[in-house]
Amino acid sequence: MELIGERINGMFKDVKEAILNRDPGPVEYWARRQTENGAGYLDLSTGPAVPPEEQPAAMEWLVKVAQSASPLPCCLDSTSPDAIEAGLKVHRGRAIINSTSADQWRMDVYFPMAVKYGAGLIGLTMNEQGVPRDAASRVALAMELVVNADMHGLPMADLYIDPLVLPVNVAQEHGPEVIEAIRQIKMLADPPPRTVIGLSNISQRCAERRLLNRTFMVMCMGAGLDSCICDLEDGLLVDSAAAARVLLNKDIYCDAFLKTFRQR
Amino acid sequence: MELIGERINGMFKDVKEAILNRDPGPVEYWARRQTENGAGYLDLSTGPAVPPEEQPAAMEWLVKVAQSASPLPCCLDSTSPDAIEAGLKVHRGRAIINSTSADQWRMDVYFPMAVKYGAGLIGLTMNEQGVPRDAASRVALAMELVVNADMHGLPMADLYIDPLVLPVNVAQEHGPEVIEAIRQIKMLADPPPRTVIGLSNISQRCAERRLLNRTFMVMCMGAGLDSCICDLEDGLLVDSAAAARVLLNKDIYCDAFLKTFRQR
Repeated sequence: MELIGERINGMFKDVKEAILNRDPGPVEYWARRQTENGAGYLDLSTGPAVPPEEQPAAMEWLVKVAQSASPLPCCLDSTSPDAIEAGLKVHRGRAIINSTSADQWRMDVYFPMAVKYGAGLIGLTMNEQGVPRDAASRVALAMELVVNADMHGLPMADLYIDPLVLPVNVAQEHGPEVIEAIRQIKMLADPPPRTVIGLSNISQRCAERRLLNRTFMVMCMGAGLDSCICDLEDGLLVDSAAAARVLLNKDIYCDAFLKTFRQR
Repeated sequence: MELIGERINGMFKDVKEAILNRDPGPVEYWARRQTENGAGYLDLSTGPAVPPEEQPAAMEWLVKVAQSASPLPCCLDSTSPDAIEAGLKVHRGRAIINSTSADQWRMDVYFPMAVKYGAGLIGLTMNEQGVPRDAASRVALAMELVVNADMHGLPMADLYIDPLVLPVNVAQEHGPEVIEAIRQIKMLADPPPRTVIGLSNISQRCAERRLLNRTFMVMCMGAGLDSCICDLEDGLLVDSAAAARVLLNKDIYCDAFLKTFRQR
């Protein structure tokens, strides 16, 4: 289970101001803090405050600052291909591109970019028709992503399929469909693609957010979830990931399994 | 999700002494307490301290005392058919028999008994050859239980199949097999049988017992678990069951979903 820290995102006020003022402090702080808390990747997003033409420079700055404070690789999160590529050019190690949809024109941009830079690529199971209602439609779009990965020569281990999590208080019927989609996506190819979700979305504007987050993550792990973008400040969430790994026989049980998980 | 309170069991010292001295206090206390904490059933077990010939009288006493203190129905837990029947005779409401194995001679005793008393029946996926290693062998034994239910006229909604949970520190490879078995058992018949596990066994002599228990329960719920025998003192476990029900779209989300779950 790879936990991708969600905190370096211009949606948060401190990070937004850090980006606008080129103040490295908050970015360095969250890079270090999420690393200590057990993250395997740092998601980096400039957020909506940065105008499109300035996004490449902002992403380049984010990558440099985050990697000056942490040994972790980053997940470059932007809707701008230029911003993604600017980040990839200065990134150290294996980055992840976040993300392409299953629209052909996007796939034709991002798959070659992932191959060129040796990066992973998150593929969303959506296209211009929007987010699918059920598991079967998600899996059909996942298959298009798998076929394109194959066509462009991106190894399945570098494709992360995201079946798109929606808030439980407004789209409750999507929850079991996402879980079932993950289960089926892991059977689409051999070796299978990876799976990822943006976890916190499940509990947007809900009560008991952390309970909902960790419960949903654990059910998704039972179905084959490999990684998730999440809140590393939530200690019980990280504990739950460690416990699920042990119970799925993916990490060996020992009495110190929580410590072992965080120290990897 | 039906939570079956595990606490009225002669394995616990206070309950053992209560049974031996016919002191209703501790049994009444745990009956009330587990009811308040959200149980749907009370498991009743005399435990190993009561000699075989005295077990029917002890079970009859346990049922009467538990039901004097709680409106809940009981899950009669004994290896003695005579003790089970003594309990069924005085039980109010729909009891559950805990349990039969998939050995034919046991099934020929317990299925007619369940039908006669209108009770549910827990069927373990094991026989004289022991506990199966993998999901497929568990499902094969589940199929024998389903066939016998059909033969004896026990409705599928009254058959609870238990795929047998083993401690993660000594039998780690069984964890994912149990989860997969639950998923397949729910597809064995239409309507499907119910599923149940003895949850606390997953964490026997382990560190972080409650974390392991609730994480395993949630993964099993994602695969189709309907009920589990568990520790109702564990508030986070009950919260997790409530959250999983909401996320699986089985209970409607509302901000007070934790309270709603306990008050049913």
